Amino acid sequence: MKAVVYRGTRKIEIEDRPTAPPGYGQVAIEVAYTGICGTDLHIYHGDMDARVGPAAVIGHEMSGRVAAVGPEVTGWAVGQPVTVMPTRSCGGCAACKRGDSHICHAMDFLGIDSPGAMQSIWNVPADLVLALPDALPLHHAALVEPVAVAVHDVRRSGLGPDHYAVVVGGGPVGVLIALVAQHAGGRVMLVEPNPFRRSIAGQVGIEAVDPQVDDVVTLMNERTAGAGADIAFEVSGSAAGVDTAVDVLTTRGRLVMVAIHTQPRPVNLHRFFWRELELFGARLYQRDDMVEAIRLVAAGAIPTTQLISGTLPVHAVDAAFAVLERGGGVMKVLLDWRGSAE
Amino acid sequence: MKAVVYRGTRKIEIEDRPTAPPGYGQVAIEVAYTGICGTDLHIYHGDMDARVGPAAVIGHEMSGRVAAVGPEVTGWAVGQPVTVMPTRSCGGCAACKRGDSHICHAMDFLGIDSPGAMQSIWNVPADLVLALPDALPLHHAALVEPVAVAVHDVRRSGLGPDHYAVVVGGGPVGVLIALVAQHAGGRVMLVEPNPFRRSIAGQVGIEAVDPQVDDVVTLMNERTAGAGADIAFEVSGSAAGVDTAVDVLTTRGRLVMVAIHTQPRPVNLHRFFWRELELFGARLYQRDDMVEAIRLVAAGAIPTTQLISGTLPVHAVDAAFAVLERGGGVMKVLLDWRGSAE
Repeated sequence: MKAVVYRGTRKIEIEDRPTAPPGYGQVAIEVAYTGICGTDLHIYHGDMDARVGPAAVIGHEMSGRVAAVGPEVTGWAVGQPVTVMPTRSCGGCAACKRGDSHICHAMDFLGIDSPGAMQSIWNVPADLVLALPDALPLHHAALVEPVAVAVHDVRRSGLGPDHYAVVVGGGPVGVLIALVAQHAGGRVMLVEPNPFRRSIAGQVGIEAVDPQVDDVVTLMNERTAGAGADIAFEVSGSAAGVDTAVDVLTTRGRLVMVAIHTQPRPVNLHRFFWRELELFGARLYQRDDMVEAIRLVAAGAIPTTQLISGTLPVHAVDAAFAVLERGGGVMKVLLDWRGSAE
Repeated sequence: MKAVVYRGTRKIEIEDRPTAPPGYGQVAIEVAYTGICGTDLHIYHGDMDARVGPAAVIGHEMSGRVAAVGPEVTGWAVGQPVTVMPTRSCGGCAACKRGDSHICHAMDFLGIDSPGAMQSIWNVPADLVLALPDALPLHHAALVEPVAVAVHDVRRSGLGPDHYAVVVGGGPVGVLIALVAQHAGGRVMLVEPNPFRRSIAGQVGIEAVDPQVDDVVTLMNERTAGAGADIAFEVSGSAAGVDTAVDVLTTRGRLVMVAIHTQPRPVNLHRFFWRELELFGARLYQRDDMVEAIRLVAAGAIPTTQLISGTLPVHAVDAAFAVLERGGGVMKVLLDWRGSAE
């Protein structure tokens, strides 16, 4: 079988490996499609070498079919379509004991801390496997994991019907948040300077504005009789994005912090005080979010076809990473693993 | 009658004024005690000249007795002990329409935007008057308004029994938050560098630590098996206070922003993301908070005697402001208005 292995900064290799049978409590999955995530790019750039060892098999967005079940595993049938929740909590840390196991302090993130999805046959703990509806095309199902991120973010926002929501940043996660929020009845405005990303948003029915042209705060105030937005999602990772997300909110409006800010950002705390604003960090997802993401993708609520910019065979993994690195004209890129197990 | 009038930066005068009868919808209150708030000091320093005109009567913490009722006012009896909720919302702005009238965009704050409590007879809209229990000493009742701030802050925190809470900043508001939180069953640690303030906190049963000596994060982690605090209140207004309040929190811990930060502060947003922390602005109070504050003060839950550093007659108002300006050895200072109406 094949595996995509990280060999060091900007070195990704396809390796031939023997297929191992699933171990105790594991399910062997014949991988069909894997998505390439921003985190995979960070690994590729060498930014995560402290966590990702050399010869690590990366990847955590996927779909596939059960190939075999290990000892003492029940409930799974060979050939059944599945995806995987790639986060495994320790059960013993302070976060797990509080019920916040999805942000476990000793998280085992498959594809970062232990072998990931970019291999023809992936052996994973059975409790992380989720069934997919038979009718759901597997290349669509490869988007379930990023959709679960968006579902979690929207849940943290408390968004309800007719809430005005601003999504700052129109990469794959931002667009998915906008879609999930709009599907939940929100009135969504996406803020994104990149014209390609705005055009993708437009194609999937999301209004996208250019912050270099439009004043987002003024626009939102016009629509809300001067009140401002109920909810803002900060997905840009930029200082300017934080300012926009704070300035656009109405009284008791809620800012959901989705992006990774690698340095402290100046925040207008006086506005938090004055308007009683709320800021909620949102990271990863819980199992319920994965289940809801499967439901949304299967129901056609996520226009997966428009979001998948390209699907390349596994042997073109270098090209896939290069396309994503150039950025600009790409949303989600998939690798097609079908037939690679032989 | 007498009135304390702001005449410009560091100029406060006592003026003789004729007594006006209560107008339509008003209650005339014979003021017994007024507290001097940090906001009154800001006015005194000239920091609020844009809002506070010359010849303004200041003050908004008070207790007194009904002296007369205006036309079409019912439900109040002369001599009845009362206090006042000094905030009046417009009813028409975006905040009011959302149900956030307590932080109305066009707020009329009595003692800032319109005549305040520092006058022998104060005519106020009847809907802002709150009854006090007969048995509650009026000098204790002068603390109801700042206690309502603390009640509001604790309510915004979601604090429940056995929650660990850190209060950063041990001025009057910080100590009141600590007391209200502890009364609600919280396990409270106050962080305050000033030794006098720490000693006051100690006298009223609040554990207070010196951040120049103790590492608050380490202390709290030791007590919570490494988890961290459930709740932090930022009442210091300092950049270091923000850092402490963020760093001390456990997963999904909540920071309540009580202090006024006059400039943007660097905030570790990555920790908000990573631990799914929450930040809630908290400003002023709602009527329910005033009612609860009266209940707490009347029940003896707030050790008012220890918190009132001194009570001075009205004619010594200059001395009272001077004492507060020196800071250090003072918590709450009251002015005694009894007998000044003649």
